[in-house]
Amino acid sequence: MRGNISEIKWLTMTAITFTLTAISISAYAFKRKWNDMNSKIEELEASLKSCSEKCASERQGRIRAQQALREEVTKSQPKSENLNLTCYPMMPIGIVHSCFSTRNGTPRQPLLVPLARACLVFNTTRVPPASLEGLEEYSHCWILYVFHLNTDLDKLWKHPSKSGFKAKVRVPRLKGGRKGVFATRSPHRPCPIGLTVAKVEAVQGNMVLLSGVDLVDGTPVLDLKPYLPYCDSIREATVPNWLTDDNLLSVASISFSEDFASALEKCWIVAEKKSLYASPGEFQSLIKQVLSWDIRSLSQRNRPHDALLNENGELLGNASDVDDHENAINSSEIIYHLILEGLDVSYRIDHVGNVIVHNVSPAVQDNKHSFFNYLTWKDKLQ
Amino acid sequence: MRGNISEIKWLTMTAITFTLTAISISAYAFKRKWNDMNSKIEELEASLKSCSEKCASERQGRIRAQQALREEVTKSQPKSENLNLTCYPMMPIGIVHSCFSTRNGTPRQPLLVPLARACLVFNTTRVPPASLEGLEEYSHCWILYVFHLNTDLDKLWKHPSKSGFKAKVRVPRLKGGRKGVFATRSPHRPCPIGLTVAKVEAVQGNMVLLSGVDLVDGTPVLDLKPYLPYCDSIREATVPNWLTDDNLLSVASISFSEDFASALEKCWIVAEKKSLYASPGEFQSLIKQVLSWDIRSLSQRNRPHDALLNENGELLGNASDVDDHENAINSSEIIYHLILEGLDVSYRIDHVGNVIVHNVSPAVQDNKHSFFNYLTWKDKLQ
Repeated sequence: MRGNISEIKWLTMTAITFTLTAISISAYAFKRKWNDMNSKIEELEASLKSCSEKCASERQGRIRAQQALREEVTKSQPKSENLNLTCYPMMPIGIVHSCFSTRNGTPRQPLLVPLARACLVFNTTRVPPASLEGLEEYSHCWILYVFHLNTDLDKLWKHPSKSGFKAKVRVPRLKGGRKGVFATRSPHRPCPIGLTVAKVEAVQGNMVLLSGVDLVDGTPVLDLKPYLPYCDSIREATVPNWLTDDNLLSVASISFSEDFASALEKCWIVAEKKSLYASPGEFQSLIKQVLSWDIRSLSQRNRPHDALLNENGELLGNASDVDDHENAINSSEIIYHLILEGLDVSYRIDHVGNVIVHNVSPAVQDNKHSFFNYLTWKDKLQ
Repeated sequence: MRGNISEIKWLTMTAITFTLTAISISAYAFKRKWNDMNSKIEELEASLKSCSEKCASERQGRIRAQQALREEVTKSQPKSENLNLTCYPMMPIGIVHSCFSTRNGTPRQPLLVPLARACLVFNTTRVPPASLEGLEEYSHCWILYVFHLNTDLDKLWKHPSKSGFKAKVRVPRLKGGRKGVFATRSPHRPCPIGLTVAKVEAVQGNMVLLSGVDLVDGTPVLDLKPYLPYCDSIREATVPNWLTDDNLLSVASISFSEDFASALEKCWIVAEKKSLYASPGEFQSLIKQVLSWDIRSLSQRNRPHDALLNENGELLGNASDVDDHENAINSSEIIYHLILEGLDVSYRIDHVGNVIVHNVSPAVQDNKHSFFNYLTWKDKLQ
């Protein structure tokens, strides 16, 4: 009986021990696997973090680059816009410092005003003075320039193909009639390059003194070429009939008010330093030459009797612009203004074209360009 | 005693059952945790994969954008380089399709070769045909164009201020003497804009037929202006003495070989389709006009007797280039080439200036531009 019991006890013990051992072993195995998995998860989480950080920085870099690119492309629109047509960047070689401070009064064609002087100053970083050697041997030269006062230039540079340039332009001589832009010399052209001829007076260093110019002060110059009569002068060239009846109206007479001389003397003290003219007398001759042609616009000429004046008798606008006709007056009472070398020349003109120049005073906004002293040229011009 | 044994048995059983239950429970817990972890790992691995993919694409995008930016910046160099001088982007308004396939043979000045025809084709996206209305009323017009064959253009566009343009250029008439570039019409100018006059033959849609041109085929045109004799023709203009002794050598005589006519007839079958000329006869007159001026370069003219020929008698170079003078021959044996409308016209010229045109054949590299059928103009020209 005793053997029986002890046998059972042993059996039980063995069973329990065995079971416990089995448990502990599997537990241990589990534990190891467990740790492995935890570390793997930690690892994965870490690399995920760094990856998303890297991704963010790449993204930022991409955005920055694309923004910069967009800017650059809009800057150089013409190139990207018209892949089929090359766009040639033309950088001016110099600037014209002319006696004509504003467009108003600038002659409608070259050589009309012999005393109309300008100093073409070359940019020495681009054009060494040696490149002007021999120019003084020619009597005349061509000036290729940019119509820099066109208000639509920016649009033109940014979107040449979209530039709102008009295919047909109003022609003064046709009293508002329209012609294709390439049948005219209008400044509003797809490539706003102007062509004019001038007299070569003197060459000095990086400066060329010109006369007979029709260029407004500050005009950027692209090129200067000698005038070759055997190529450039075509006597037999013909023009349309509408051009032959020349409407460059010359005025009947020009006189100066009594006080004019003294007014000019006063201005001259300051003006002389930066003038292209030797004396008040020479400057007065310039005024005379400029005003010997009726420089008023078509509208000014056609309905001066509708004009409105302020209390000083200065032109405000045209009656057509307003309802009130009370101030409408006679053209001979209108005061017109011409700004030469930063001096404001005021004059009247009557119905039959007699001009009375009655005053001269420093213009409100002075001519910032003509800082050239006549004396620079004195020896050359004598 | 019996109770004792049964008690022990029960105890053992309970113990084992309990243990096993405990094991199964913990095992179940482990199993669940285990699955959770596995799915988490799968999750993490998936998001890591997608993240690194996203990162790669961002990186590619960044690189592409930066490359494009670099390109764009170098393209618009002039702007960034010279902040002080505005750079005006000038986009051609059209292309000249001229009879002169190469520079060699292109007249040295306009109107020298009356039959020298060109068709100026305007880019309609920039220039509506209406802008040409009225042009046909003028006999002549100015063409402002780009010297597009200048080899130094790229440098000029990219670094206008650094462009290696020479201040002084050799002048053919001075037998190599040098003058300032602005005292010449040299194409190598800071702004490589050319100015030439041409006869207006006809205007049709967006095309203008010109004659008397000195423009090489493919010339990009910036502007066209009507010729105004009262502004542009200056009879009294004077030039330096070195220009007055005109060295446009006219030849003594021009004759054609017996086989020439038949050779031209053969070429004409193909050439006619894209020709600006009505018949082989008219094309032959063009050849006669072009060759009536000695179009050889100064060096070709001055030392032909030193010239070297290949077995076909074609000009290889000058003896000065090599030591061996064996092949040196007489100028009358040299074969010169003139390419008009893609046809290679070969001729000889003797010491006293008698020209013998002996053959014509399609040029190796054909003129890709002149695809204009004369018939387009036939009605206009009659």
